[in-house]
Formats: sequence, structure tokens, C-alpha cells
Amino acid sequence: MFEKLNQAWGDTIMGTALQVPTVVNGVNVDNLFTTIDAIKSTPAIAKFKFRIQNRWEGAAQNRSAVNEFHGAGQECSRQKSFVLHADEPAVLLGKDSAANPVEYLLHALAACLTTSMVYHAAARGIQIEEVESSFEGDIDLHGFLDLDPKVRNGYQGIRVNFKLKADVPEEQLREIVKLGTGHSPVFDSLTNGVPVSDTAERL
Amino acid sequence: MFEKLNQAWGDTIMGTALQVPTVVNGVNVDNLFTTIDAIKSTPAIAKFKFRIQNRWEGAAQNRSAVNEFHGAGQECSRQKSFVLHADEPAVLLGKDSAANPVEYLLHALAACLTTSMVYHAAARGIQIEEVESSFEGDIDLHGFLDLDPKVRNGYQGIRVNFKLKADVPEEQLREIVKLGTGHSPVFDSLTNGVPVSDTAERL
Repeated sequence: MFEKLNQAWGDTIMGTALQVPTVVNGVNVDNLFTTIDAIKSTPAIAKFKFRIQNRWEGAAQNRSAVNEFHGAGQECSRQKSFVLHADEPAVLLGKDSAANPVEYLLHALAACLTTSMVYHAAARGIQIEEVESSFEGDIDLHGFLDLDPKVRNGYQGIRVNFKLKADVPEEQLREIVKLGTGHSPVFDSLTNGVPVSDTAERL
Repeated sequence: MFEKLNQAWGDTIMGTALQVPTVVNGVNVDNLFTTIDAIKSTPAIAKFKFRIQNRWEGAAQNRSAVNEFHGAGQECSRQKSFVLHADEPAVLLGKDSAANPVEYLLHALAACLTTSMVYHAAARGIQIEEVESSFEGDIDLHGFLDLDPKVRNGYQGIRVNFKLKADVPEEQLREIVKLGTGHSPVFDSLTNGVPVSDTAERL
């Protein structure tokens, strides 16, 4: 298994450059295509499980630890967990010490669209110089506060604007953005919905 | 308008305690009910717009700034932006300098379920002592890598486990968790889907 992984992800995992890689948009395209070949020969390594653990810290504050995940046929862990804090602004009865959950959702979408776009552009040899994007979503508290059953709890809609610096014709700018929306795991999850199951137990 | 806001959010905004507030789970329940009354009399103040701006930093790295939002009838801003970084682990061709987008999505869900649960429990006078939760979601890269059109790009499913410390009967633990799933904006967004529109322009 480990040999397959090494084949798949090459010098990224081995830490040794065996040849000068083709890098587009900062992405090692050789490794990307080697990954694709490895998945074709061993489909199971494509299955990933991502995880977080969260702990409540009173009122609107809580903190997630991000570390272990399962991917490429093995358990993977970071040397140190990434810690993500959440809070609410004062107007939503918090202490405003961190971004709030629905802002984190926009960040997840922005980050995933950007990375998906950049990776898939790299695979096609499309060089991108700069990317900036802005995101805005609408929430009506009549939903969350049980004041109107016709109003949903979540975002009613999200608007995304991408600005790209790339030496491509005007009409290709939209195609490049579509590489993001057409492949992004968060975009798919958020636009098409995901089944979420929950359990509860005593601590 | 500003007077209405002060009525609505009381001493949270004014910074002056006019009376000893009722605090449950760290949440000022007086302010929560005053907010609800204010929205009943001025429905427009319930409409919020949340925003982020993101900038690509090469390969899988990008960074969001979180600051201004619209809510309670006015533009609101923080003194300093919250900055959220994203990357991918080496096995996904990144430098593993930050949580990845689909891990941020789990954090958004965890944070929102926890806060929604705690707020709505507080409104009902249910005291919660501790909350811990864990989240796991499945992604098959056959989707993202265009290797199988039957495999979706996003999460195929997410499993949530809540552990609560509260002086309530066993059967009420699930009801408390349902206060989260039944009201959380991120849970609704993610399970039912959100329309996302996008535009592209030259930087």
C-alpha cells in the first residue's frame, strides 16, 4: 500500500525531488496526474474522511480542533492541530472574538472554489496570476428565531464575484471560474445539499 | 432606527447594564427576547448580509478577511478583520499550513449547531454545562478528479455526534440536540442546499 502511495504522490510525500516537476499555479501537475493514475489502478485510495472535534466555551463561543483525516488508504495526522474559534458579534449576543459560523461557511466556499479552480486550471496548463473573490449571503432571522415558518433558517442565496488576472481572452474568464464551481466539493455540498445524521449522548 | 436597535439589543450595544440580566448558558436571555420583540415590530431588522473577501496565495493557499456585515438595519464592522487561512495537506498537493476547505465546512457546521442549540436551550431555560461534538464526512476524489460522473464532488454524508453534560433526563438529550439541527443556519444551508450565483471579471 505504502509503495502505491509513494507512486501516487511522488516527491510530495517522499520529500525528495526525483526530477524537475511541472509546476503550474504553484501546483505540481506531475503529482496531480500521478495521483489520477494511482486512483485509476487502486480506486479505494480516492476515499477520504475529514473530521473535526468541537468544544463549547460558553454562549456563542466554541473551538474546533482539526487534525486527523483518512485518505489515500491510510490514517493521516498533522504534527499539531489547527484550532478554529467561533463567536458571534454583539448584535447577535456574542463577544465578537472570532468569525461566526455562517462567515466560516463563506470562507469554506471561497477557499474551495479558489483551490478547485486553480488545480483544474493547472491540469489544463492555464496559468493564473492573481485571484480575488468576494462573497455575500442573505439570512433572515425570522427563520432562526421561529418567527415565520415560511422563512428558512439558512442562507437564502449567496453571491460570488471572482476577479482574475490571467493572460486569457475575456470569454475564458468565466470558463476558468466554472472550473471551480464544476469541481469544488464545498460548492457541490452547499448547492446540492448533504445528508447529515446526528447522535446524542451524555458527557 | 438607532433607538430601535438600542431597544432591541439593550445593554449589549449600550455597554451599560440597566438591570441584572437573566443569563442562561452564557446567553443574555433578556436581550434575546427583546430582540424577538424588536423584530416583531420592525421586521426589516431581521435581514442580515454576511460577507467575506478572499485572496489566492498560490497553489492550495488562500486567505479570507472577515469584517463588515449588514444586520439590524445598519452596516456593522469590526475594529479588525478576522483572517482565515486555508491550505491542503501534502497528500492533496498542498503545504498543510492550515485546515482545508472541507474541514472549514465541518467547523462551520459544528459551530453553528452548537450555538443554535445553546441559544435555543437558553430561551427555554435549559441549562447546559458542557458540550463536545465530533464530525466526520466522506468524500470520494473520483468526483473532484472527473474520474467517475456518478460520484459527486462534495460530501456524500456527514456524521455528527454530540456529547452533553446537563441535568436532564436521558431522552431530553436528543431533544436538546434537535434544538440545534432545527434552527442552525449552517445545518439548513448544508442539508437543504443554497442557490449560489457567480460572476467573473478581470482583475
